[in-house]
Amino acid sequence: MDPRVHFITLSTPDLDAARRFYAGGLGWEPLLDVAEEILFFQVAPGLVLGLFDAVKFAEDLGRAGSAPSGAEGLTLAHNVGSDEAVRDVVGAMAAAGGTVLTAPRPGAFGGVFHAHVADPNGVVWEVAHNPGWGVDDDGTVHLG
Amino acid sequence: MDPRVHFITLSTPDLDAARRFYAGGLGWEPLLDVAEEILFFQVAPGLVLGLFDAVKFAEDLGRAGSAPSGAEGLTLAHNVGSDEAVRDVVGAMAAAGGTVLTAPRPGAFGGVFHAHVADPNGVVWEVAHNPGWGVDDDGTVHLG
Repeated sequence: MDPRVHFITLSTPDLDAARRFYAGGLGWEPLLDVAEEILFFQVAPGLVLGLFDAVKFAEDLGRAGSAPSGAEGLTLAHNVGSDEAVRDVVGAMAAAGGTVLTAPRPGAFGGVFHAHVADPNGVVWEVAHNPGWGVDDDGTVHLG
Repeated sequence: MDPRVHFITLSTPDLDAARRFYAGGLGWEPLLDVAEEILFFQVAPGLVLGLFDAVKFAEDLGRAGSAPSGAEGLTLAHNVGSDEAVRDVVGAMAAAGGTVLTAPRPGAFGGVFHAHVADPNGVVWEVAHNPGWGVDDDGTVHLG
């Protein structure tokens, strides 16, 4: 099995709130937007983030009838080029309706400067400036 | 804020089981492997999947002391080029220690053929052949 992820799909209890946050607040252009079902954004080359209605998400996994809940125990990281850009992105996410969980600050290791912000469904984003991280033109990632 | 994800980090209660499954069973080459802490794999151009010890994951979010739990309410999709390749990948994941949740079968819409398999920490992978999905050379995704 090739080490490749093509879609990240998140169980989303409030799809309208997600739409207001990502499309309305942050200005992201959906790849596809199906009302009351799913909202897709391209978030890396060949990679799509899907925000999927929580009831339909459970049905799709053969777990119909379970209480609809959100995505937990994960973070999505968005890397930027400077500490100042971390503050700017966190400000934009807060203005769009995000909740700042940890304010911009130096991380525990590696010289990273970061913050954590929850979207309206509780999906946690890490916004980070990591001087040891880099991506080549062909997409190869380096970790310092 | 640019619509970009650079890291997917999953709270991982049993990091050794994750290492046996992905590195040992599936043969994935780690980008970085820090015992009892974190295991990184590159899973798309510019994108890293991090399997992070659940206790340290909670600490990092300022939630130290909360019961360590896994990642829930999400799926990671791995797309392949044929129905037969879906069966092959599901077989490889099961042989590596994965649990088949839904056997390979036609999906509810769009001509997709797919299955769901849980890794040893309960992370759900969707393995899919979707004739309507495609990726251009520059990484642009098309949804049919």
